[in-house]
Amino acid sequence: MQFHHHGYVSGEPRVLPAEGVGVDRPAELPDETDVLIVGSGPAGMLLAAQMSQFPDVTTRIIERRDGRLVLGQADGIQPRSVETFQAFGFAERIIAEAYNIGWMNFWGPDPENPDNIIRTSRTEDYGLKISEFPHLIVNQARVLDYFAEAAAYGPGRIEPDYGIEFAGLTVHEDGEHPVEVRVRHTAGPRAGEERTIRAKYVVGCDGARSGVREAIGRKHVGAMAAHAWGVMDVLVNTDFPDWRIKCAINAEAGNILHIPREGGYLSRVYVDLGEVAADDNRQVKHTPIEDIIRKANEILHPYTLDVKEVAWHSVYEVGHRVTDGFDDALDADRHPRVFLTGDACHTHSAKAGQGMNVSMQDGFNLGWKLGHVLSGRAPDELLSTYAAERRPVAQQLIDFDREWSSLMARKPEEISDPQDLATYYLATAEFPSGFMTQYAESMITGTDAHQALAAGFPLGKRFKSAEVTRVSDGNVVHLGHHAHADGRWRVYAFADPDASKLASWAEEAAPLFARFTPADGDSDAVIDAKAIYQQRFDEFEVTHAPELFQPRTGPFGLTDWEKVYAAAPSAWCATDIFDERELSRDGVVIVVRPDQYVAAILPLDAVDELGAFLDGALLPAS
Amino acid sequence: MQFHHHGYVSGEPRVLPAEGVGVDRPAELPDETDVLIVGSGPAGMLLAAQMSQFPDVTTRIIERRDGRLVLGQADGIQPRSVETFQAFGFAERIIAEAYNIGWMNFWGPDPENPDNIIRTSRTEDYGLKISEFPHLIVNQARVLDYFAEAAAYGPGRIEPDYGIEFAGLTVHEDGEHPVEVRVRHTAGPRAGEERTIRAKYVVGCDGARSGVREAIGRKHVGAMAAHAWGVMDVLVNTDFPDWRIKCAINAEAGNILHIPREGGYLSRVYVDLGEVAADDNRQVKHTPIEDIIRKANEILHPYTLDVKEVAWHSVYEVGHRVTDGFDDALDADRHPRVFLTGDACHTHSAKAGQGMNVSMQDGFNLGWKLGHVLSGRAPDELLSTYAAERRPVAQQLIDFDREWSSLMARKPEEISDPQDLATYYLATAEFPSGFMTQYAESMITGTDAHQALAAGFPLGKRFKSAEVTRVSDGNVVHLGHHAHADGRWRVYAFADPDASKLASWAEEAAPLFARFTPADGDSDAVIDAKAIYQQRFDEFEVTHAPELFQPRTGPFGLTDWEKVYAAAPSAWCATDIFDERELSRDGVVIVVRPDQYVAAILPLDAVDELGAFLDGALLPAS
Repeated sequence: MQFHHHGYVSGEPRVLPAEGVGVDRPAELPDETDVLIVGSGPAGMLLAAQMSQFPDVTTRIIERRDGRLVLGQADGIQPRSVETFQAFGFAERIIAEAYNIGWMNFWGPDPENPDNIIRTSRTEDYGLKISEFPHLIVNQARVLDYFAEAAAYGPGRIEPDYGIEFAGLTVHEDGEHPVEVRVRHTAGPRAGEERTIRAKYVVGCDGARSGVREAIGRKHVGAMAAHAWGVMDVLVNTDFPDWRIKCAINAEAGNILHIPREGGYLSRVYVDLGEVAADDNRQVKHTPIEDIIRKANEILHPYTLDVKEVAWHSVYEVGHRVTDGFDDALDADRHPRVFLTGDACHTHSAKAGQGMNVSMQDGFNLGWKLGHVLSGRAPDELLSTYAAERRPVAQQLIDFDREWSSLMARKPEEISDPQDLATYYLATAEFPSGFMTQYAESMITGTDAHQALAAGFPLGKRFKSAEVTRVSDGNVVHLGHHAHADGRWRVYAFADPDASKLASWAEEAAPLFARFTPADGDSDAVIDAKAIYQQRFDEFEVTHAPELFQPRTGPFGLTDWEKVYAAAPSAWCATDIFDERELSRDGVVIVVRPDQYVAAILPLDAVDELGAFLDGALLPAS
Repeated sequence: MQFHHHGYVSGEPRVLPAEGVGVDRPAELPDETDVLIVGSGPAGMLLAAQMSQFPDVTTRIIERRDGRLVLGQADGIQPRSVETFQAFGFAERIIAEAYNIGWMNFWGPDPENPDNIIRTSRTEDYGLKISEFPHLIVNQARVLDYFAEAAAYGPGRIEPDYGIEFAGLTVHEDGEHPVEVRVRHTAGPRAGEERTIRAKYVVGCDGARSGVREAIGRKHVGAMAAHAWGVMDVLVNTDFPDWRIKCAINAEAGNILHIPREGGYLSRVYVDLGEVAADDNRQVKHTPIEDIIRKANEILHPYTLDVKEVAWHSVYEVGHRVTDGFDDALDADRHPRVFLTGDACHTHSAKAGQGMNVSMQDGFNLGWKLGHVLSGRAPDELLSTYAAERRPVAQQLIDFDREWSSLMARKPEEISDPQDLATYYLATAEFPSGFMTQYAESMITGTDAHQALAAGFPLGKRFKSAEVTRVSDGNVVHLGHHAHADGRWRVYAFADPDASKLASWAEEAAPLFARFTPADGDSDAVIDAKAIYQQRFDEFEVTHAPELFQPRTGPFGLTDWEKVYAAAPSAWCATDIFDERELSRDGVVIVVRPDQYVAAILPLDAVDELGAFLDGALLPAS
């Protein structure tokens, strides 16, 4: 965490100084805004936190509810989301309060006595292998609290406008603020009042029944499956020994997906209620909680559940739907003005624990693009990459979830090998961890011509961190953890053995980066360059690194000491990032997008190519 | 983190439900209180956070200042203090914002050119070897903020009474509240008003010029040394390559102790101003900052400091003083009513980074004792152990600091071996890390007769945590991290190979523990018992552990799943706590005090001995 460089900070260093529109931000929703976010769920709140890093852009977020979410239903947090939380500054806190999924166990009928279940396998959860961050379970309400904090602590000082609902919108052809949005106050002294707001861009983060989707004429495509599940968050006493382990239970009496929750006591139980008759007419939705509990007891036999408290319960039918477009650019003539994220454009079963995660990545993908376009850093066409990148991810999600939820709903007689669910779980681990997303070539993702120089950083996938030693203070740190969600591009320059090529590269790259950087700001305000040497941290002096990696920033022009790293292992750092990520020993440059995806891989002598890439993604500073 | 067991928690789980005197706690300082803490420094604020865990005890904390501390001078945080922060719930947050001391480097004159300094050695900082927690640098003001949060979040909902100063006290012979305290409002509408408060106990946490110390007639014994140091917190640019590493610099031109601070830019520099003439008459205190900067530049030659901003500076003479008694029990006839902590009873140089740490441990030692006596869990004589235990620690501190600060102030010609400071630093590492404290036998520390059963848990020293696997969920956790600063005793029962002796022990121990536990509370409200099996976590079922380790607590009588651990190593947990702490494979019972010190070591068949020990430390529940 870096602070004090704009003067001594006495209080909470996570609170950044207010800047731009964050200074004296009006408490009331104004009549005009650059960005209007509709809905304060995971996608919307992440977006708010991201936009708070762009204090030259006015962003408001409206929410029908009159205050914070009290009880959220989503709770599964992929390692990719925890990586994202790290970038927003709250990973360590949410990890401390979440349930950490270490294992997934599988139970099936006892061959000796098929009325009883027995444990058929234990599977280490996928998280630990794929990321340095765990796979968590924590209530969506807490995730929103932390993003709300990040939004309020950012220079833009964004707070949700609670008690205001979306009522409709019209996109005009012209004008500075072409989107006319009708909103209605649902709470407070103005309750019932309708107003018209003008926005440059609107983002629909308003859930499965999205009004924004309807307003732009996009359609949710797909169907309900004829399979119902009861779900309950319960406090129980039980003799079932895996009550604090995530389990899939395939019994003669039915199926349970069991997920322990944060706090050490609460668990979420998904109970299979079977096929729904064609003429059911949604009657299954009225299944009483007593029936769900009775069914759970039948499945768990010979173990029993004594339910002491039901915190929440529901019945749902599995549905799988994707919206036919993620923005309002119905023809190619103009750039989009309205975007859809999260459940507004993809809905599916809850059981793979994916929904909140994919929604947040929608927001992470879109936020910096809005920030860059609105602050003049990038051309308008950047905004078209949102739908192009995120729609395939949504389709992958639907496909995965359909397969996973039908596997979970099988009858024991359909299961030839009791290990096969475990095998599937492990084999597909990368997807539900959030790491299968790979963006295709575009103005912000280069070609894979030089992929061989950095096999461990697949182009278009998220930059996978590894440990390095910070040269200035000898601390072992994760290289990727320095990349906060501050809207900046990152360039990691991995050095050649004697760092001579690195020195030439830095000399050429510095004026290149300066082209995109406002003259009155810090030299690393748009592109943050870091160097990683092959040596051990104590084999050279940090002060000998090129100036590019020791910029003098802030009002005092102070040296930034945290951009020079060393790779060679020591007694304190076991890994060498060059080996770990299969990096060329001749050096390699990795360009990473503000949302942490690998955008370009280049040799140290390809500064021209780097320039051409950046020219496509960024506008020269005026 | 355990929660939801008293019903669903929607918001911040670190906020515990208000209880007892924490419900409707009066905002104004009342005329009567059980405990009055004078001063909101590190000892006082830790005490407030601890007392907030005893909501049947009224505690108030007065502070002359009219609000939070803005700029604190102490900044060194021992690993022992970070362990303590963990127990109070904020270690991970303060680590994230602090400077983490990985190394201490030593610089001396270049033999080739003695006007220049060169690096003579690098020393890995002691922290990592002795504790799982690091050695940190972070402003005292932030430490106080976190303790303030813990005090406000605890069931007692304690907040400081700012703007009220101590004016004097009288201890009466009789009465429920025998200490009559005179206080004066220094701010707010009652500014200037004097009042009399009655308290059962008063704790002086009011610093080196303690009014409480003076009021009870205790004397600060010791003398100023005739050696002055300038100290400054500065933002600089420099070519000195170790600007972000803790360094001791012994140059021809003088000495510097250099300590990088939190935030990546700020550093604290202690500059040796040399011997003070006998007739100086404190003139050295007026040394201008320009002179200190000039001197620092001379010492750092050939490197230079370009100071951009001075956040704080001062000049002090090294003093070493201990108070002649730590409470008001001048004769053995009565138990103490007034206590002194922190700088009120020990002052010394700042350079070993010890002051704040020892002060906090004073508070940690005293807090639970006050809580136990006032809530009827322990006899009055427990309070006499405070001075008996903490005065020797203060004396050790003074002795260590005197040696360290004179070593630091040597001239290069007095140094025969440039490595000797580094050698001393490493050899004495346990002390400045905070782990040399070893309490002597007393009513709360048993005999060392069975020390051989647990060589790695030295009796009277703090319980040194190690990793184990929680059986219920297969998560690898630190055994000691479950021990929150909630005022409870802990009993760790390490099992015999087949856990048969453990089962018998649990059967006998359960009624014994019940003797000290109020009938209307949780069965683990006073003594929290945990079991550690020798097996791997997946070799047995948690539900087979004795009931003592699976108590049903809270309003719903829910099973606590977090008291059964497994020791045998796995691919996920490399250490076996039995090996790591040299524990008898026949099993052993470790009793740990509420302040985390090892109180008793007993074999599994010595339940009588355990009972005798507890009878000395606790009162039977009424």
